Amino acid sequence: MNLLLLEEADFIGPDRVVLGDRRLTHMQEVHRSAVGHSLRVGRIGGLMGTAQVLRLDPREAELQVTLDQPPPAKLPLTLVLALPRPKMLRRVFQTVATMGVPRVVLVNSYRVEKSFWQTPFLEPEAIREQLILGLEQARDSVLPEIVIEKRFKPFVEDRLPAIVEGTLGLVGHPGNHPPCPRALTEPVTLAIGPEGGWIPYEIDLLGKAGLQPVQLGERILRVETAVTALLARLF
Amino acid sequence: MNLLLLEEADFIGPDRVVLGDRRLTHMQEVHRSAVGHSLRVGRIGGLMGTAQVLRLDPREAELQVTLDQPPPAKLPLTLVLALPRPKMLRRVFQTVATMGVPRVVLVNSYRVEKSFWQTPFLEPEAIREQLILGLEQARDSVLPEIVIEKRFKPFVEDRLPAIVEGTLGLVGHPGNHPPCPRALTEPVTLAIGPEGGWIPYEIDLLGKAGLQPVQLGERILRVETAVTALLARLF
Repeated sequence: MNLLLLEEADFIGPDRVVLGDRRLTHMQEVHRSAVGHSLRVGRIGGLMGTAQVLRLDPREAELQVTLDQPPPAKLPLTLVLALPRPKMLRRVFQTVATMGVPRVVLVNSYRVEKSFWQTPFLEPEAIREQLILGLEQARDSVLPEIVIEKRFKPFVEDRLPAIVEGTLGLVGHPGNHPPCPRALTEPVTLAIGPEGGWIPYEIDLLGKAGLQPVQLGERILRVETAVTALLARLF
Repeated sequence: MNLLLLEEADFIGPDRVVLGDRRLTHMQEVHRSAVGHSLRVGRIGGLMGTAQVLRLDPREAELQVTLDQPPPAKLPLTLVLALPRPKMLRRVFQTVATMGVPRVVLVNSYRVEKSFWQTPFLEPEAIREQLILGLEQARDSVLPEIVIEKRFKPFVEDRLPAIVEGTLGLVGHPGNHPPCPRALTEPVTLAIGPEGGWIPYEIDLLGKAGLQPVQLGERILRVETAVTALLARLF
């Protein structure tokens, strides 16, 4: 936790918060906070800054906050991601939040097992928990938007073209394709497939929506690694 | 598992192997192999190719192998890594093997907790297990070399300069440094710090050994994410 994130419900005044959960534990056990110490904070969806410890007891901490710094810029990107398996999904939520992805569309694909859609990790509170861990890691205060599209074809045919419009549309796909471009400054729409990859029908449909295949070499990466590698290459 | 890796002990003839462990389970449950099916294999430290299932029973599988393809090229890199916390360490071993790092030096640092050096995940067999998972993911058959250097100063002063010689020496470090270079083809020596980063004394000593600081932006990445992002950017 490199940034302590503040929820609306923590505020007891315009610049006063009271905390009493894992963040208090972290202050005590990792930061070894004491009255008078200061630490980095951010208001979820708002500015970042510092907080001074006014009161600290075993059950809660009261902080005075000064929020005067903008969060870091997000990447100019919409990430379309075939739903990963549940264990990977949690880490992917952290990774996209850490890397600064502003919007992720989780989509079905032929090679996504149906059972993956039943995971409790897709509950809004579970998603938010992982995103916050990723923001705390990166020092960012703005949650990415997570959109869930359980049906591939209606999403790709009806809604994806409007997302791709005005952006460079790419789909990560192994094979004899151009290499993933580097150091872009323009907005990008990037699709990343499931374990085992997209099937040809899906690549065709993504192509009609404006996404062209690019590759990262012959090594097959886990989804989480592929997300990080593609973003580090693109931007 | 995108490649089934064969150990020397599996060979019962020049082109015959018998398997009976988690690889058999994987063949049965994931590949749903049957006699006559073929699958991708690689000999650890050797060539890759295909294997045909000759016999399959609940306890073992016999395969005829044809090994005729070289493994993918490794990156021209030595990675010097401050020892990560144990849970992260296992994933980092997988990641470096998947990404094609040929040599990793695990080194101490001021911000590495002493207890991390006690982890059973540093036992040779435990390291090898994670590296093999990473190779199976990437489709590679050559294990990276893992070197353990428990003392920072003697390693950096006495042995690091010879590693850096003839390579571009870089150390990933947040701050007002040049951005990490892109798309290199020359050999690189790259050092990545612990959670919380290198201390100034360490940056000084690494600099004297020929490693210059570069940064990836203001977001703070977990070690595993930083490794992937730096490698995807550099090569």
